[in-house]
Parts: sequence; C-alpha cells; structure tokens
Amino acid sequence: MSLLIAGSIALDSIQSPFGKVSRTLGGAITYTSLAASYFVQKIMLVSIVGGDMDKKKLSVFRKQNIDLKGIMTIEEEKTFEWFGKYGYDLNSRETVYTKLNSMACFNPVLPTDYKNAKFLVLANFSPLIQMNIIKQMAIRPALILLDTSKYWIKNAEKQLLETIKMTDVLCVKDEEARYLTGEYSLLKAARAMAMFGPKYIIIRNGEHGVLLFHQNQIFYSPSLPLGDVLDPTGSGNSFTGGFTGYLSQSKNLSFDNMKKAVLFGSVMASFCVEKFGTDKLLSLTNKDISDRFEQFADLVQFNYEIN
Amino acid sequence: MSLLIAGSIALDSIQSPFGKVSRTLGGAITYTSLAASYFVQKIMLVSIVGGDMDKKKLSVFRKQNIDLKGIMTIEEEKTFEWFGKYGYDLNSRETVYTKLNSMACFNPVLPTDYKNAKFLVLANFSPLIQMNIIKQMAIRPALILLDTSKYWIKNAEKQLLETIKMTDVLCVKDEEARYLTGEYSLLKAARAMAMFGPKYIIIRNGEHGVLLFHQNQIFYSPSLPLGDVLDPTGSGNSFTGGFTGYLSQSKNLSFDNMKKAVLFGSVMASFCVEKFGTDKLLSLTNKDISDRFEQFADLVQFNYEIN
Repeated sequence: MSLLIAGSIALDSIQSPFGKVSRTLGGAITYTSLAASYFVQKIMLVSIVGGDMDKKKLSVFRKQNIDLKGIMTIEEEKTFEWFGKYGYDLNSRETVYTKLNSMACFNPVLPTDYKNAKFLVLANFSPLIQMNIIKQMAIRPALILLDTSKYWIKNAEKQLLETIKMTDVLCVKDEEARYLTGEYSLLKAARAMAMFGPKYIIIRNGEHGVLLFHQNQIFYSPSLPLGDVLDPTGSGNSFTGGFTGYLSQSKNLSFDNMKKAVLFGSVMASFCVEKFGTDKLLSLTNKDISDRFEQFADLVQFNYEIN
Repeated sequence: MSLLIAGSIALDSIQSPFGKVSRTLGGAITYTSLAASYFVQKIMLVSIVGGDMDKKKLSVFRKQNIDLKGIMTIEEEKTFEWFGKYGYDLNSRETVYTKLNSMACFNPVLPTDYKNAKFLVLANFSPLIQMNIIKQMAIRPALILLDTSKYWIKNAEKQLLETIKMTDVLCVKDEEARYLTGEYSLLKAARAMAMFGPKYIIIRNGEHGVLLFHQNQIFYSPSLPLGDVLDPTGSGNSFTGGFTGYLSQSKNLSFDNMKKAVLFGSVMASFCVEKFGTDKLLSLTNKDISDRFEQFADLVQFNYEIN
C-alpha cells in the first residue's frame, strides 16, 4: 500500500567523538522514508527545501523509488538546518543551532494522487499544518501516525491535542510522553495519551527500546546491544520508517502484527546509528534486515517449559 | 539446594516524594534473601550488625526460614547505616550519608555447615573479604555470583579482579560495567568483563531491564512498566535474590534456564519498588509471582508467523 510521509528535509551538521559531517542530507522524513523504502514500494514525500539544496543530494530518494512530487522549493530561502553535537555517551545531545529557514513556510497543498495514500506519517512539525494535511486527504487513511516534540507541546498544546485526536498512533519519546501528560510512569503517561484519542501509543526510550500500548495490552521491543554506535541522529525517525513501512506492506493492522512492526522499526533504528547520517540506511540488503530481526527475536526468546 | 548470601545488613533511612522511612531494616542481603526465600528453602546469611540492631527487626528473616547463624553482632558498634534521598523521577539518588560502622569490621568465619552451600552470593563489599569467604568454602559451590560497586573498582581494582576471576557470574549496574571496563557500549563492556573470568555477565540497567551475556549469547529481560514506583531501594539486590533463588531451586545451570532466572529476578525487582523498603517483599504469594512472570513473558512475546 502507499505511504505518505510529511515533515522536514534538512541539511544536518553532526559532530560526535567518532567523527563529523557538514550539511549532509537529513531531516525527519529523510530517515523515515529511507527506512520504509526497504518494505514498501510506493512512498510519497511532502516537504519543503530552499534554493541551496543541491538536487544531487535528493538522488538518494530516487534510487529508492521515493516520489518527490510533493517537495516544494523556495528558491529565495535556505533549507532547514540543524547542527548537533554529541558527547562521549551519545545520549547527551547539544543542539548548537536549528534554523527553520524554508520550513517556516511549510503549508503544503497535496498533489492529487497523494490524497489517496493508505498510510500517513506526520513527522514532528506544527500541529496546525499536520491537521491541514489530514484534512486534505480524499479518503481517511487506514493509519495516521503522528510524532511531535516538546516545542509544540509547550507552544501549541491545544492545536496539538486536536490534531492528535484525529490520528491512530501517537509516537513520542519518553521525555515527551512525560512532558505532555505530567506523569513520570510511562504506563500512566500512555494511558493518559490514549485518552486523547489514538488507539495506539508508542513510547521510544532511545537506547532502551520501544513500548507499544493498545487498550490493556503492552508490547516491548528491546534495543540490541551494539558494539559501535557512531551517530544516533535519525534513529527515532528510522524506527517510524521501519514500523510504518512494514505495516504498509503487510496490510494487517492487528495488534499482533503491530508488534512485529515495532520490532522492524527497532531493527531499522539499530542500523541507523551504526554509521553517520543516512550512510547505513543507504547500504542495506533484505538479508541484513531479516538477520537482524532474528537477533532481536533471539534477545528476548526463552523456553517457557524448562526448569 | 542451599544458598549462602554474604554482605551488608543495614538500617536504612529513605526519603522520596512519595514518603519517608527511618532506620528500617535494609542492606544488600536483606533484599536478596527475602526475594530468594520465595524460591529456595535453605538460605544462610553472613553479615555483621551493631548492638543497636533491634533483634525484633530480624524476625522477618526467621519468618521466611532464613538461617541467621552467620550474623555476628558487635555490641559496642553501631549497625551499618545508609540515608538516601530520591528525586521525583526516582532515578536521581542522593546518598546523604553512608556510615559503615560494624561493616568496617566484617571479616567472617563461616559456620561449618555454611561451608557446604551449593550457591554463593557475594553482595557488594570488600573484594578481599569476598575472596576470604570463597576460600573458606569446603566444596567449590556450583555457582558463585559477585556484585560490586564503583568504590571497589576505584580503590581495590587489583583485588577485585582477582576475586572476580574466582566467580561464575559478575552482576553489576550499567554504570559500573562502563567504569570497570572503560567501554561505553554494554556489549563491549560485557566482552571485556568476560575476559576477567566469569562465564556469565549480568548488567542491570535500572528501570530499563537486565542483560545476560554468556559466550556469544545475549538475553534481555525488560522492565515491566509500572503505575506506582515508590522506592527503588534494594531493587538490584531483589533481582539477585530472584535470580539465584530460582536457580538454587531448579538446579539447572543451562543458559536456557538462566534466562528464566533473569526473568524471575526482574519479577522480584519489580515488586520491590512498588512499596517502601522491604514491605512488598514481605507480603507476596506464589501466585503473585507466577502472575507477574506471565506479564513479563507477555510483554515481549510476539507471533513469528503472522504477516
């Protein structure tokens, strides 16, 4: 099925104890769509870039057959820029700067064929624009996933809650779940978020795995202990890409299948962090993915009957 | 089989946003033995207390049939004291004070029947004394587990490494694993610690679950998302109690059975934090334990075949 992904494309500068890159192709939907492209054929992007975006950089999307018709360019603006520095433990991230640039003008009109997408991912951007996109859909998608951040919780909470109400999956980081609900317990935070409307709540705990909540059911996907983690940038969005990519392809929205989708999301996030930027996401094979899925499965598998 | 547990018994004062207790019975082997007592009949304690220890407090051990012959009293000394304060998130712990008191004189001579214990837990105390206890055993136990802390890594690293070499399971917190090995990656840290000698490495990630490493195999037990966490004191030791208690009872040291032991350890830790001090560990039923084990199993269980 078709997957529509809306959000930022950025030029990222990243510095970590393991290296440095400057103005590399990044942004939420870059990671999401590249991760999803291993699962689903028809991916459509909605974003905005500035005149400084080197069109050659966008060729990575074309190689993965990702439709770029919904990417607008404002020639007289610059592309969204982000510069982040990581400490030795890679958990302490300092944002040196965020320059919204063209993203400040992001208010897309969807191309006609985009309006029939079966799956919709709204990455982290203004809740008002997220809602505008939902309203443009010709048919209600089978699944709408929304991501957000502390900034929107703080500055546009009312609009955010109205938009969340229209979605099926709310997918946030642990610290955002706590900030949004005022609950430290992630169980209580998930219950509070479910009251906002979405049937599924996903809480991403960074290097500590992912929780999926649905009614009274909980599923937990661990993180795989990795030897070399070079750059965590984009791991959350890679999770979203693996999760929605797998679901779009399998067309099964049961909770049982969502669990597998969460594992595939975690698989894609685990690859993402092993190299800088999108490098690893651009060089995977289907066998890499299925092998790593086995590793995730082995990690928690035990023999119930033994004693 | 019999389980010998050596380490501190303390009078703990605990303050958290959810309450306060003063001079309650605590210490590593209190939590470890109470958690283990739900699995194994014969538990023997080795520790030292001061003349200020109210003997009525020790009745909780007798109720659980725990042998106290190995607990020495120094009348003219005070019992080991610890005062800890927790912040709202319960992860940030401030140790207001630690008064070693009688524990500074801890250098036990084992009662004769203790020397034949089949399982030995060495909680966190001086590596030299840990080694002295191992050397007093008449028969090499089937399993020796050692816990330690940053203090001993910093101040007695050589003796600690010599003692670790004599053990089967090294069980430490994530931050201790990193400090001991200089590796941030827990996978690399576990590999480095396995080089010290132990066949099994356990890394406890606090509220983020537990990792068990053995040769090239890894098992991960999640933490259960809980609604009410009142006091994390003793959760690590409760894990150790559940882990070694289950193993002592089942007498099966295969990696497959160790996985189940890790889950039972996590079950006991999850109970421990739900009330203050040892309160919850004193009021469990076997059904509570098996029900919670099911919850842990459900949390990670998925259907491989679905699509």
